[in-house]
Amino acid sequence: MIGNRRSPEKWDLETDVVVVGSGFAGLVAAAIARGRGAEVLVLEADHEIGGIMRISSGEYWIPNNSRMREAGIEDPKADCVKLMARLSYPTHYDPSSPTLGLRPRVHKLFETYYDSASPATEELAAIGAMGSVFSDGVTPDAEFNPQGHIEYHSELPENKIEYGRALMAETGGIHGPGQGQATIDLLVAHAGRVGIDIRVGHRVEDAYRNAGGAVCGVHAVTTSGTVDVRARRGVIFASGGFFHNEEMRTQLLRSTVWGVTAPHTNTGVFLRIAQGMGAMTENTDSLWWGQMGIEEVIDTHRSDNMAFWLYGDSMVLVNRRGVRVVNEKAHYNERGRIHTVYDATTKQYENNVLIQVYDDAVANNPEMGVKYPVPYPDQPTDHVLSGNTLAELAAAIDERLAKLASRTGGVTLAPNFTEHLAATIARFNTFAENGHDEDFGRGEAPGERGYSVLGLTRGVNRTMYPFAGSGPYYAVLLGAAGFDTNGGPSINEKAQVIDWDHNPIPGLYGAGNAIGAPGHGAYWSGGATLGNALVWGFHAGVNAAAEPVREA
Amino acid sequence: MIGNRRSPEKWDLETDVVVVGSGFAGLVAAAIARGRGAEVLVLEADHEIGGIMRISSGEYWIPNNSRMREAGIEDPKADCVKLMARLSYPTHYDPSSPTLGLRPRVHKLFETYYDSASPATEELAAIGAMGSVFSDGVTPDAEFNPQGHIEYHSELPENKIEYGRALMAETGGIHGPGQGQATIDLLVAHAGRVGIDIRVGHRVEDAYRNAGGAVCGVHAVTTSGTVDVRARRGVIFASGGFFHNEEMRTQLLRSTVWGVTAPHTNTGVFLRIAQGMGAMTENTDSLWWGQMGIEEVIDTHRSDNMAFWLYGDSMVLVNRRGVRVVNEKAHYNERGRIHTVYDATTKQYENNVLIQVYDDAVANNPEMGVKYPVPYPDQPTDHVLSGNTLAELAAAIDERLAKLASRTGGVTLAPNFTEHLAATIARFNTFAENGHDEDFGRGEAPGERGYSVLGLTRGVNRTMYPFAGSGPYYAVLLGAAGFDTNGGPSINEKAQVIDWDHNPIPGLYGAGNAIGAPGHGAYWSGGATLGNALVWGFHAGVNAAAEPVREA
Repeated sequence: MIGNRRSPEKWDLETDVVVVGSGFAGLVAAAIARGRGAEVLVLEADHEIGGIMRISSGEYWIPNNSRMREAGIEDPKADCVKLMARLSYPTHYDPSSPTLGLRPRVHKLFETYYDSASPATEELAAIGAMGSVFSDGVTPDAEFNPQGHIEYHSELPENKIEYGRALMAETGGIHGPGQGQATIDLLVAHAGRVGIDIRVGHRVEDAYRNAGGAVCGVHAVTTSGTVDVRARRGVIFASGGFFHNEEMRTQLLRSTVWGVTAPHTNTGVFLRIAQGMGAMTENTDSLWWGQMGIEEVIDTHRSDNMAFWLYGDSMVLVNRRGVRVVNEKAHYNERGRIHTVYDATTKQYENNVLIQVYDDAVANNPEMGVKYPVPYPDQPTDHVLSGNTLAELAAAIDERLAKLASRTGGVTLAPNFTEHLAATIARFNTFAENGHDEDFGRGEAPGERGYSVLGLTRGVNRTMYPFAGSGPYYAVLLGAAGFDTNGGPSINEKAQVIDWDHNPIPGLYGAGNAIGAPGHGAYWSGGATLGNALVWGFHAGVNAAAEPVREA
Repeated sequence: MIGNRRSPEKWDLETDVVVVGSGFAGLVAAAIARGRGAEVLVLEADHEIGGIMRISSGEYWIPNNSRMREAGIEDPKADCVKLMARLSYPTHYDPSSPTLGLRPRVHKLFETYYDSASPATEELAAIGAMGSVFSDGVTPDAEFNPQGHIEYHSELPENKIEYGRALMAETGGIHGPGQGQATIDLLVAHAGRVGIDIRVGHRVEDAYRNAGGAVCGVHAVTTSGTVDVRARRGVIFASGGFFHNEEMRTQLLRSTVWGVTAPHTNTGVFLRIAQGMGAMTENTDSLWWGQMGIEEVIDTHRSDNMAFWLYGDSMVLVNRRGVRVVNEKAHYNERGRIHTVYDATTKQYENNVLIQVYDDAVANNPEMGVKYPVPYPDQPTDHVLSGNTLAELAAAIDERLAKLASRTGGVTLAPNFTEHLAATIARFNTFAENGHDEDFGRGEAPGERGYSVLGLTRGVNRTMYPFAGSGPYYAVLLGAAGFDTNGGPSINEKAQVIDWDHNPIPGLYGAGNAIGAPGHGAYWSGGATLGNALVWGFHAGVNAAAEPVREA
């Protein structure tokens, strides 16, 4: 049975540390383990190196980092850990408790994150793998800021820092598309220099355990057969989430999630293996949330695109009744979860499909910015519905929903959709004129303005502008999406995978989206995903390299 | 490691089938296995027999049952399975698909449920364990109905049956408090007659597997030592959910769930063991949902009481802003989930604590009914807050919330609570006068009226009546609660526990709240919980008894 495979008669390969997965967590773990003297082999299921990092904008969240300290920005530990606790476990958070209301293990993970994130970046620089610089960004006033975007949650009293925790690799590039790939390129080049063997097309299916129960190797499948690799010191799983395992996606997530940016090779192999070893699991109903245009991913369940920030000022997001349900400018990880709300009266997930509605000024705004799924002039528009009046727009939406009904749980527009949408827009227009969204506080948090002001310059509150009094109007169908799932086996502060009694499973480490995210679904700020990948990849590399050589 | 224990040198006891847990699922499985000729031993961790069934009102949902057929009520299979699919996977449901849009395994479970539920009750009667009769109830017009309450979801087009699917054991009692215990008493008496050995105070901690990997026994702990029991044919886990494992509760559920009706011995042992055997898991973020007064369970996490139906006509449930968030008369499993909604603007679970507000007429209504947490005249009232005006009431709520702050994530009333509450009540009063709740459709579904009309006779729509123009007013703090969790290891149509490839784990069966509920969190109607316990307990008993004798 999975997770309990006994060592083969003969190994095809031997090394000190096997890393499963070549995304950011895996390559960081490999570089660190190699830097600490271990021989390292990286096995990548896909035919390309880099995992989900290939399409990332490449920043990582590092509290109290060396760049901040050089710039004189203080980031006290107590405050930062409180922020992490408050965001991760809002209903358990208790600032008066020694562990802030958290389980002691989780509190220790947060302290460890704070303590070791900057040293991890420094060690990566010292071994020549990757230097770190401030990630650049814009301020809430849309001015370029070399110290990055503002923190996602700067409005919370627990957050004491506005800028500087987000770093990125010193690639010569800027924060944005391409920076993730450039970071992978740096790490792969370093791997070549120091002799880290990276093999693509090696899909790990199981791990081997020795007579004492310690993990001592892996079983991989390639197009030409199987490969059994002995890991003398440890195995690090950084193999991504489970979204592309349809069984796991359907049975562990709550309602429909339409797609992710993760590659199709992320099929939850680590969850299978680690559960088979008795690992504790957590957060398995969660993703790094976002939204995608449903028609783009209805068959493929994957896209390079994500609606990070909903584009447009004269724009609202409404449900099938024509009613707003969320702050459209909230961060993607906050906003995406609104699709999973269950309606006790209709016994439906009424937000399964939401409708982004905007006017001609938004559609034709020549400025740049993160517009997806609103198309740029040269992009396909099949998914954009339009009408010269709201009633015409509703008819177009109705027609499209009818075509998709077998895939949406039969979503239709409510009979009074047009009337409600008109009322919603009228109310929104008043908010836009006054600059204050009485229903959802749109654009009030600096973190929202800091990410969504590009190309928006018309209103008192620049995130809102009254809709034009006449059409054409446009609509796009949006659904829940994400980068990948972020639940799975639990780790301790050494990135060791643990059982339900918190005993480590000897020789087994985890990092990245393959593990149950310590933050329990919270997105501490921009770069929290890669920050976790880096920090736990670092600890996995350090501790696996330091293991004694084991019997096979 | 857990789930991989090899057989001991010497067994303390031997039997054909070991059943872990003596709740309804366990006792049904035991009776069926014994009836089919197996020797059966039941191990109960608690010092009392019956598990959560002890406080149940004792009805089970059996489509197309023999009582219905005798009464001439037709319940066609295709319609019933559609109802189950629609409720369980609303966003995946597709009536045009051969599997209704579900994973084929799940569809087969639903078909099996329909096909075998009535035969299971008939076999229990035939072996002398337990006869079944209609569960009694009241109609939406508050008239006694010997065929039971109306189906929970009778308003859905997929539901074709109003009455009759809910059965209960022929105990001589009526549907309600005491009937669960009476049913346990029947099954225990039968067990005594047929020689089923039931041992309390035996906490199973692990299972044994033979050289071929099949489950062949269990390791139990008692106050006087350990007991190793060989199971020649199979082991059936019916050991309840995992709510009372604080680690699992905190890390697998999404936000705070305050308490359950399940006994404290339900600590997720089966999830641990089955994961350690490589079992597939599902639905692990879910409970059979409800609500409880938070102060009652803030330390114990357990109560015999549950707010099944929110009591009162001049009553609303509001959040910390004084705004209604749900149909107060929705069924408990639908309503309880509203507490888990995340607010993208405040980055909080704004419904973590909700406030049931009612007036003096409700507080002093002399009629009976399910009033909890509104106290009967002779019950404690410490948890009831009051004020002669809404402002005084708000002050009392504020004061109580301040005392509880360290346990609630710091919930406070929003600054404009009183003003919003007044507006909410004014709007509600208009709805009550017109008989139509424009916001949440309160009282429109027959299933709501059928369960909450007792003692409510004043309004046009009897679930709503305008609040008195003057105080006193009352408030109770409510939070998410449940019977127990209902996620865990997955089964096939034989109640065999399966791995992620759907291969059965030989010798291992599961039923009741210990398994991942096939309904994925849906409550098909009154009795769906015990119906699942009975049906999968039945299959586990049938199939475990039919296994060949295994090597130990």
